[in-house]
Amino acid sequence: MTALKNDRFLRALLKQPVDVTPVWMMRQAGRYLPEYRASRATAGDFMSLCMNPEFACEVTLQPLDRYPQLDAAILFSDILTIPDAMGQGLYFETGEGPRFKKVVSTLADIEALPIPDPHKDLGYVMDAVSTIRRELNGRVPLIGFSGSPWTLATYMVEGGSSKDFRKTKAMLYDNPQAMHLLLDKLAQSVTSYLNGQIMAGAQAVQIFDTWGGNLSAAAYQEFSLAYMRKIISGLIREHEGRKVPVIMFTKGGGLWLESIADAGADALGLDWTCDLGEARRRVGNQVALQGNMDPTVLYAKPEAIRTEVGRILASYGKGTGHVFNLGHGITPEVNPEHAGAFLRAVHELSAQYHE
Amino acid sequence: MTALKNDRFLRALLKQPVDVTPVWMMRQAGRYLPEYRASRATAGDFMSLCMNPEFACEVTLQPLDRYPQLDAAILFSDILTIPDAMGQGLYFETGEGPRFKKVVSTLADIEALPIPDPHKDLGYVMDAVSTIRRELNGRVPLIGFSGSPWTLATYMVEGGSSKDFRKTKAMLYDNPQAMHLLLDKLAQSVTSYLNGQIMAGAQAVQIFDTWGGNLSAAAYQEFSLAYMRKIISGLIREHEGRKVPVIMFTKGGGLWLESIADAGADALGLDWTCDLGEARRRVGNQVALQGNMDPTVLYAKPEAIRTEVGRILASYGKGTGHVFNLGHGITPEVNPEHAGAFLRAVHELSAQYHE
Repeated sequence: MTALKNDRFLRALLKQPVDVTPVWMMRQAGRYLPEYRASRATAGDFMSLCMNPEFACEVTLQPLDRYPQLDAAILFSDILTIPDAMGQGLYFETGEGPRFKKVVSTLADIEALPIPDPHKDLGYVMDAVSTIRRELNGRVPLIGFSGSPWTLATYMVEGGSSKDFRKTKAMLYDNPQAMHLLLDKLAQSVTSYLNGQIMAGAQAVQIFDTWGGNLSAAAYQEFSLAYMRKIISGLIREHEGRKVPVIMFTKGGGLWLESIADAGADALGLDWTCDLGEARRRVGNQVALQGNMDPTVLYAKPEAIRTEVGRILASYGKGTGHVFNLGHGITPEVNPEHAGAFLRAVHELSAQYHE
Repeated sequence: MTALKNDRFLRALLKQPVDVTPVWMMRQAGRYLPEYRASRATAGDFMSLCMNPEFACEVTLQPLDRYPQLDAAILFSDILTIPDAMGQGLYFETGEGPRFKKVVSTLADIEALPIPDPHKDLGYVMDAVSTIRRELNGRVPLIGFSGSPWTLATYMVEGGSSKDFRKTKAMLYDNPQAMHLLLDKLAQSVTSYLNGQIMAGAQAVQIFDTWGGNLSAAAYQEFSLAYMRKIISGLIREHEGRKVPVIMFTKGGGLWLESIADAGADALGLDWTCDLGEARRRVGNQVALQGNMDPTVLYAKPEAIRTEVGRILASYGKGTGHVFNLGHGITPEVNPEHAGAFLRAVHELSAQYHE
């Protein structure tokens, strides 16, 4: 394996000293980039792109080629690959987001769900990871990822995106045993999926709990956090002689930071509603923090973006343990030059906090 | 004025002893009720209903007639009456939510906005309040309300609903002076609007900061909370020989409870992501709390609803200072019998906490 030329992302996650605050952007390989839109135009639909390791590699590397400041690459894939591998039939309707041909409604539906084998059933993802890792050639570390069990369950029960998750919540409250069986199967699947990605070359992994923040405080503990804890306890934490850091990101989970910090991850992702300095005081030395600029700040002018980056860096303060990111994925309408101004500002303004 | 036959809602807001925990539901006069849908069918569009005091009174009283457990009535109106009175031209497109004919984009647009006179420009609301108050005849207290300046500003700048408030946020970050002028005008307007409602007979008022929770922690303080604080300092707090409690509800504001509790209101509304017992410990004796069942629990069976009500009551614990409510408005598809089961459970299960 080629030695890593830039490991500041991994070092910050493990709270080791760095020269500047590392930065990457959720959904950095995405529609805001004209080169991505061009690749999409030739590759066909979104799932074809995800399932073709060469294309997945191409778009994963695009933002790195454009922005030399990026300190990590993230596997180009979808969070719903696991339910698809379970036989739910994932497809994308134009302008409608993800949809499933089958919907999970009953205990019998859940009992019938298989646990996918990452190599047999999700081999295209493993191939994408190893292809990207080879092509990165040590430039920056590669992040693997999965959706959290609760987040995957919402799509499987609703049959797609939802505003208030009414079917999933009705199942949770009316039939908690069925919901627990579904979440348990998903936790097993996510564990082996992430371990497969690590063995294929992912140097850190992130669990996206995109919809955990929509649960009540009590339901979050029982139906989302408990299963992420279970996953983390089953992950390979060292590979190729290096630690493999785990990042947990519950969007809207700021109220529950102490318990999330206690679930075994190395770092927590934060959305922008959480003051970074206050979050640091609350979690102490237990975990590193990743985030948390409001992605809509990228609609403002570069000077305003720079001011906001400076404010967030000052809020975190001196020392390592912070990976800069947006508080959610970058949106398609953002001007790529604004993203560049954001990334430059992070490196330029953060050096003073690492002297 | 007729004496109030049931004042347990007002008493709980002021932390005075009560026999059972009072309860009402945000959007209790709404589409989930067949009698409301029937009134809508004859009254025409939504704004015609809001602007007709007799119709507004009729639908305000409908849930009280159906559910004897309701401990408060809330004025039937829309949160966007103030921007409409400023000349923005509010209308409702079927299935699209609220829209404005004019959009606020520049400093000049904001400078041109008038501050509505509640009696001259919003007389239909004042008439609705006095009509409802008369027809209530002392059954339960009447709640008046307004949107918060930040929440109103998002609709005015976006021209309607929005997923990420990109135009409003861009204005906030690029042109904070313009945003402050807009918010200041809105704060002045809301203050005289709520005072008008109080003089017309509202016995408590609630400020709905529906979108404050989408701001960064720092921006929330400067662009939402500061203006609600200003409003509260200008409100009439005693009328007809009784205190007029003020409730502030920032959806998604659970992280900031301490500073919200310090803004001068008598009570805070909470969404369901906030554990009620923990919120009580955090705010101490400073304010009462209102909330906070996940409204989607109403899609579950009555037994499950009852269990969740019991859990929330136990989390708050013994004593006054809690008004039960949902953590957000009741949704159109809820079965009215489930809403009834919810309301009954609150009174039946809460008596033990008030002995």
